[in-house]
Amino acid sequence: MTQWFEEDARVVSEVHRQNALARQNQLTKPAGSLGVLEHCAVQLAALQQRDQPTAEKISVRIFAADHGVASEGVSLFPQAVTAEMVRNFSAGGAAITVLARELSADFQVINVGTVGVLENLAAVVDKRIGAGTANLRVAPAMSPDECARALAVGRDAVNALTPTDIFIGGEMGIANTTSASALACALLNLPPQDLVGRGTGVDDAGVALKATVIGDALQLHRAHLNAPLQVLQYLGGFEIAALAGAYIRCAQRGIPVLVDGFICTAAALVAAQLNESVRAWLLFSHASAERGHRLLIEHLDVRPLLNLDMRLGEGSGAAVAVPLLRMACALHNQMASFESAGVSRE
Amino acid sequence: MTQWFEEDARVVSEVHRQNALARQNQLTKPAGSLGVLEHCAVQLAALQQRDQPTAEKISVRIFAADHGVASEGVSLFPQAVTAEMVRNFSAGGAAITVLARELSADFQVINVGTVGVLENLAAVVDKRIGAGTANLRVAPAMSPDECARALAVGRDAVNALTPTDIFIGGEMGIANTTSASALACALLNLPPQDLVGRGTGVDDAGVALKATVIGDALQLHRAHLNAPLQVLQYLGGFEIAALAGAYIRCAQRGIPVLVDGFICTAAALVAAQLNESVRAWLLFSHASAERGHRLLIEHLDVRPLLNLDMRLGEGSGAAVAVPLLRMACALHNQMASFESAGVSRE
Repeated sequence: MTQWFEEDARVVSEVHRQNALARQNQLTKPAGSLGVLEHCAVQLAALQQRDQPTAEKISVRIFAADHGVASEGVSLFPQAVTAEMVRNFSAGGAAITVLARELSADFQVINVGTVGVLENLAAVVDKRIGAGTANLRVAPAMSPDECARALAVGRDAVNALTPTDIFIGGEMGIANTTSASALACALLNLPPQDLVGRGTGVDDAGVALKATVIGDALQLHRAHLNAPLQVLQYLGGFEIAALAGAYIRCAQRGIPVLVDGFICTAAALVAAQLNESVRAWLLFSHASAERGHRLLIEHLDVRPLLNLDMRLGEGSGAAVAVPLLRMACALHNQMASFESAGVSRE
Repeated sequence: MTQWFEEDARVVSEVHRQNALARQNQLTKPAGSLGVLEHCAVQLAALQQRDQPTAEKISVRIFAADHGVASEGVSLFPQAVTAEMVRNFSAGGAAITVLARELSADFQVINVGTVGVLENLAAVVDKRIGAGTANLRVAPAMSPDECARALAVGRDAVNALTPTDIFIGGEMGIANTTSASALACALLNLPPQDLVGRGTGVDDAGVALKATVIGDALQLHRAHLNAPLQVLQYLGGFEIAALAGAYIRCAQRGIPVLVDGFICTAAALVAAQLNESVRAWLLFSHASAERGHRLLIEHLDVRPLLNLDMRLGEGSGAAVAVPLLRMACALHNQMASFESAGVSRE
């Protein structure tokens, strides 16, 4: 039986791509001189099936959850910070909330599994699957049912969106670089030493500990890491699964995705391995300073728009890249042609 | 006698820099995790002498002029395009005019020397010094008086600005990558082969021709290329001199400059060599696809914000980078602190 996440993404419009390419070559500039901005406009035209691509309506969904592996001491911050940051998102003081305001974005936080139940908070929806995942060093992070439910939380969040030009997923979860690194090691068949980075800022000993924890997990679960869905279940997190589900559903609904940094790219890798047709719908916003991100980017063979040494998560890098898409669309839609402006050609 | 362009730039506020650094370390994020955006906010706070740096009011000034060296066939486009593009700027169809509108920027074009006199055009000011420069392969591009007047056009344009958070200079001038490359070769003591690129898109033979033309010019004028002012006079252009004058005046008035790509960086190099104190006021927006830009950037020891393979000029790369500065300021000014948000620290 085909599962929902295996259903094909919407077909990309080659007609709109060709029309957009032709238009770019008529605009009053040397051919190709807007570089990556030209590619962005053309790709958005093809994805959105519009002659005038647009990046005005942005939907930001932050998935927050705790990780059992935090008990191994892999993060610089205490686990309480996940819930505290959900409150900070709600109050508007976090980086992503500032950026979402600047973009006039539709913003919501989805609690997929903080350790404790949270009070009612503005812009926060409770979809808790459990009190954090299990510690992946000693047990599967999720049961098969929990993993399926987490994927579905992401799907349902996208199903509930009003019309949207660009979707941004973000995450909050203390210790989630450890989970994402473990996931990436399993999916790319790489040793932890190649992938593990400093996360929120651990020192060399902290990096070594993360590598040991991940190495133990890969060894313990090795018989169950042969398919992306199992890798997600054994090594992932509720928020990472929700992100993967959201990305897949965006592709199925025809909503371009702007992928954030390391954690989100790991979720994008899961999504692309679960459903290859999702790939075309993923735009990559920035190269994170988190060490393993470079390897994910190389594997996916993509070139992120920005390289600003950001490593905050929350979807912040994707939000910062939105104005580039808006500029690309404005140029594509508003520039004069050589003919209309009476400018001589080469 | 000290010339106007040798007068010191405004002193940068170390107090504001230290306060801004301290604030960044209190915001609800892992220390340093906003990467380059943190540096931008801190630098703007120091330059603007504000606790809340801002990049809202943008002034864009495009300097347009023709180059005698165009007669050597170094550009893909006919010389008429300089004037045609001035009309396109005025009518709002060019890339920089689209971007300036998106930014709600104060926009003006200053004609420093198109070959022919132009009719009255909205948003275009006539400050023509001559009918283009002389062909630098066979004569000094400018007389000493013309060069001084072109520098003063830039200075006066900045003197006339209403209060401005960020200044962007742009340029239009068929064949000006040849002039800028010649200038850079002389200032950095590099052979033309290392610096010359494709400009608006010439082929290998075109690149070779540009290198020959520049080599001839460097040879012809070699006795006069010992100081930056002479290099500018013999090898520069009216718009390049005006840009250098504008950058210097911005630094003296305390207005941060966002430098565009290859031509503008060559002008910034002239400005910095004429007056070392200008350096601190120059922010670099993007790494151009024009080959020589990398060498200029390395020499200036700066890291541009963007790398999007743009090579259009007009100030377009700088305009595209403005939202990054706005995001950096919004994050700096609006994020909550660990204390105010009740978030635990590492």
